[in-house]
Amino acid sequence: MMAAAWANQYDIKTRIIDKNNARIGRGQADGLQARTLEIFDSFGVAEGVWKQGFHDIEICTWLARGDEGIYRSQRVLSQKAGISRFTQTCINQAIIEQTFVDLLAIDGRLHVERNVLPENLSFERSHLGIQNVYPINVEVRHLQRHRTSPLKNGTREGQKSHIQIKSDEDADAANEQANGDTEATEKINAKYLLACDGAHSWTRRQLGLPMEGEQTDYVWGVMDIVPLSNFPDIRQACAIHSATAGSILNVPREDRLNRLYIQLGLEDNSNNRAQITPRTMIKAAQKIMAPYTIDFKYCDWWSLYKIGQRISPKFSGANRIFLAGDAVHTHSPKLGQGMNVSMQDAYNIGWKLGAVINGTAKPDVLATYETERRQVALNLLKADREIARFYSRDSEKKQNGADTEIPDFGRIREKMHEFLAGIGITYASSILVAGVVDDNAAAVFANGHSGMHKSVIAKPALAFNIKLGARIPSYKILNQAEARPVQLADLLKSDGRWRILVFAGDIKDSVQSTRIKELGSALAAPDSILHTYTPTHKPIDAVIEVLTIHSSPRTEVSLFDFPDIFHPYHEELGWDYWKVFVDDKAYHDDDCGNAYEKLGVSRLEGCLVVCRPDQHVGYTGALEDIKDMERFFEAILIPRV
Amino acid sequence: MMAAAWANQYDIKTRIIDKNNARIGRGQADGLQARTLEIFDSFGVAEGVWKQGFHDIEICTWLARGDEGIYRSQRVLSQKAGISRFTQTCINQAIIEQTFVDLLAIDGRLHVERNVLPENLSFERSHLGIQNVYPINVEVRHLQRHRTSPLKNGTREGQKSHIQIKSDEDADAANEQANGDTEATEKINAKYLLACDGAHSWTRRQLGLPMEGEQTDYVWGVMDIVPLSNFPDIRQACAIHSATAGSILNVPREDRLNRLYIQLGLEDNSNNRAQITPRTMIKAAQKIMAPYTIDFKYCDWWSLYKIGQRISPKFSGANRIFLAGDAVHTHSPKLGQGMNVSMQDAYNIGWKLGAVINGTAKPDVLATYETERRQVALNLLKADREIARFYSRDSEKKQNGADTEIPDFGRIREKMHEFLAGIGITYASSILVAGVVDDNAAAVFANGHSGMHKSVIAKPALAFNIKLGARIPSYKILNQAEARPVQLADLLKSDGRWRILVFAGDIKDSVQSTRIKELGSALAAPDSILHTYTPTHKPIDAVIEVLTIHSSPRTEVSLFDFPDIFHPYHEELGWDYWKVFVDDKAYHDDDCGNAYEKLGVSRLEGCLVVCRPDQHVGYTGALEDIKDMERFFEAILIPRV
Repeated sequence: MMAAAWANQYDIKTRIIDKNNARIGRGQADGLQARTLEIFDSFGVAEGVWKQGFHDIEICTWLARGDEGIYRSQRVLSQKAGISRFTQTCINQAIIEQTFVDLLAIDGRLHVERNVLPENLSFERSHLGIQNVYPINVEVRHLQRHRTSPLKNGTREGQKSHIQIKSDEDADAANEQANGDTEATEKINAKYLLACDGAHSWTRRQLGLPMEGEQTDYVWGVMDIVPLSNFPDIRQACAIHSATAGSILNVPREDRLNRLYIQLGLEDNSNNRAQITPRTMIKAAQKIMAPYTIDFKYCDWWSLYKIGQRISPKFSGANRIFLAGDAVHTHSPKLGQGMNVSMQDAYNIGWKLGAVINGTAKPDVLATYETERRQVALNLLKADREIARFYSRDSEKKQNGADTEIPDFGRIREKMHEFLAGIGITYASSILVAGVVDDNAAAVFANGHSGMHKSVIAKPALAFNIKLGARIPSYKILNQAEARPVQLADLLKSDGRWRILVFAGDIKDSVQSTRIKELGSALAAPDSILHTYTPTHKPIDAVIEVLTIHSSPRTEVSLFDFPDIFHPYHEELGWDYWKVFVDDKAYHDDDCGNAYEKLGVSRLEGCLVVCRPDQHVGYTGALEDIKDMERFFEAILIPRV
Repeated sequence: MMAAAWANQYDIKTRIIDKNNARIGRGQADGLQARTLEIFDSFGVAEGVWKQGFHDIEICTWLARGDEGIYRSQRVLSQKAGISRFTQTCINQAIIEQTFVDLLAIDGRLHVERNVLPENLSFERSHLGIQNVYPINVEVRHLQRHRTSPLKNGTREGQKSHIQIKSDEDADAANEQANGDTEATEKINAKYLLACDGAHSWTRRQLGLPMEGEQTDYVWGVMDIVPLSNFPDIRQACAIHSATAGSILNVPREDRLNRLYIQLGLEDNSNNRAQITPRTMIKAAQKIMAPYTIDFKYCDWWSLYKIGQRISPKFSGANRIFLAGDAVHTHSPKLGQGMNVSMQDAYNIGWKLGAVINGTAKPDVLATYETERRQVALNLLKADREIARFYSRDSEKKQNGADTEIPDFGRIREKMHEFLAGIGITYASSILVAGVVDDNAAAVFANGHSGMHKSVIAKPALAFNIKLGARIPSYKILNQAEARPVQLADLLKSDGRWRILVFAGDIKDSVQSTRIKELGSALAAPDSILHTYTPTHKPIDAVIEVLTIHSSPRTEVSLFDFPDIFHPYHEELGWDYWKVFVDDKAYHDDDCGNAYEKLGVSRLEGCLVVCRPDQHVGYTGALEDIKDMERFFEAILIPRV
């Protein structure tokens, strides 16, 4: 659905197929990182989720005190203050999915085709390097509605037993009635294929890619209940570690729900699985949480799972077929990362596919999907192994219960807090992220690949809190013409555009004013990047948008002190008043007026920052570095014909 | 639509009829006060409007400098900082209307019946005093669709010439086909009637009520355009006063629109009206704004109007038929108040009708509609006359152009800023607002009417920034169980409930803890107000909700330190974690932790505050004043049977 949101923005021809006959109704993932909410916000859909979800602000650790039961040993911040305008939020995956269903429904162009089962995948290798051919062939079967069912209470993604495939004879009636009494098959030819088909990915198996890593044999229970409890921290996220009865991760949720992950202390086998019910799970929880009580009368969903950390060696087939999410990495749910990293996989490949297919970007950019996202998955697996140590003592390792051996939960989270929030994700130097000259320069380039900007060197010191390869932080600035406060991020919508952020500095200074005028002339020139990469008949900001943020007092300058190209004129719509902003104090919001300081940009001299369509920073330079910026774009974008 | 929102909340049987065949599409009113947005927010619909609308933050005054054209003479804040979480917002009335259409569509129970024209109104006077009869009879005609048309570009509300009434013979086919080829008539019997039928109100005329006041003969033009202009303040609200060419009020809007109110310097007669087009209007604007340029290629809507201040002597007929909005008060659009005061009329009568019809409140409360809202209308007319002086010099009074004679625009607005924001509206002592003992006590009571709480005296000094009769200010507090910041106003949704806000003070203090326990016992007693006024089989918070805000450090107390009645237990849903809050610092929001100070409540001792269903404060007392609070409710609510 995340990739579909991009496909919708780029207006590319897209089909979305799902073998299930309905979307998820309950259960599944429920943790959203701050970064994921930022991404939602870039599509304009964060607010409903943010309001309805539980805000995971504090996490409490409870440990055992001898035989006297548990006590609160630690209260840590779920996320360090100031790193995002959102905090970790817990809400049902079904609501997330509905949010994107609703988003697509606004334009009404794309929708999920349900009851469509892929049966055969082939691609013409000789065509792989050629653009504008359709080398991928997928044969799909349009299932009869009664043959599939939505994921039920307690079932898990990828259990194929829910789908009873009939014999091939039925396929004869192909193309007659897609959803009627007979089952049609269909051949879909595609330029690109993105598979988000879960831990048992059919597509990954077609590509012959294994999942590499380890899996424990101990089974955990997970349940969504409305708790009846006198536990004082029931409405806070808690890691609870009893002396001998095992561990619980308690995650409050929307409405009155709580998600409990409960260590059941059983090996995974069919005998054990058959014994486990919500009742046996709550009994285990009662032992762990004693002397506090917990029970339920309403259980919304429950399931069982094993902990493992596994990853696919490749995330793509020939940069034509891409795999995302659980299809290429699986891990425990303990860090609330799964849904996030998976959606962010799709967020990463989505804009690249959009730009390549619509002809603005070179196919070279597609290779960065694997290099950027596989590294994130490796980091996630490492983090997951580390946090697993906190929970998995006792029952799984059969050690004794001395508190001293338990890893410090707070310190583990503290160490990885930027990663957990998704804010810390920093893509290495590549065609999409300029290089830097520093002590580790060799290492930086060693991670790169063909097409990397060996020759384009950024100057991150000009914006020392804006990290190359990371998403740009957002602070509030004011619209010059309207005095209205706005988050910088609100200007960086996921609409497929690159942005040049012109931190113009103090244009009341005559030298600075001259620098800005020269930059304006360069950008307005007939051979400028704006004119080179913008298709004829499209607005000048269609591919690369120039946004200006200056630092002069707002009331002492006017829009007309800036070059026209910074606020382009349209003959029917007049001047564009929504491209020039100022870092100044606001009348009704104490939180404005220090964006330059927070971003580490000189209030006098400013700088240039290039943001990719996904808000990650590709280039930082001085106002004069327009040639370097040109070379940066030259490696990525295709000139208009 | 505002009243319908209430009718939906109270689940009362309601019909909404409109003679027009479509809702407004463009033009009309466009200014929303902060208070109106607060009310929208209480129904959960502020956000879309707040995001899409123009935020009117600064207002600039431009005056003439001899013959050299205009200059910016003043830059004033549209609204003083800190008085509301919203600021004045400008957005098309059509979007407002759609917002409420969408709100009603969520439940789907109420909708506007269009093409329905009222033709006869009668009521049985002998039944007026009897509850549960239907003394009002309205005969309506279901018009054929082609006989009505939506308000067109340049037409104004109330121009009946758009509706061609056929002869009465057609009425014979009544009840056959409401919207078919024949025109049906229908008799509607009602307990209550609310008329929001505009300046030419048919209902007001049926009641024989005149509009009293004055009307000038000078005609103004109003137009919505996308401006092509080099005027530096085009995206700010501006009052522009030229030397001899007249005045303009410029109001930026959603999308790229601007609303211009232009003084045309013409007397209102059919000859002059016929001459005026958008082109003549923009020419007048060009003269006023010289040396700056203004023009348009796109005009969204335009109209003409005369300034007048008129009011009906009564807002109700026998407290069975109520009139709201333009039906009982008209004035100029210069203060952006019309849509607000009108919607707030309906907001005021809406909950009262809801509570009387659903049987929780005594019919006596209905008389407060006229006393509360007519005073607001009188204040509005006074303010409108005052601001009119700024605009109406020159052309209308033919005086010379010396700047010194122009009233100081900023000072006028400054003086009335709380009124303009809607925040200052304070209802006098009545059955719904307890009395106070102070130097003006006699005056307060003189304004009262039968049913007034002569014997219930509030203690506003215990919360000296919470004004009896005004809406309670909102600041951020934290949920005790979840640590999540929330606006106090978010707890005061327009769902028909009264709220007792228990400012519990510091319950770590043993004396205070005892006071709270005693209050809890009194509220939990079988004969408490909660039990007396809550219908059997309804939740204990269905009519009066108790919300607690304490001032102890959040992490040093727990929900279980408060009496059960403050967080009631439900046998399937467990404890209610969303009724106890704390005024403490937040991790991610610097704006928390000073609500007690801002509200003027002692952090140690706290107090009780009763909020009406419309968030206006009815009573303030000490934690022991439960008897006074009981008497307050006794005058208003009906005990369960």
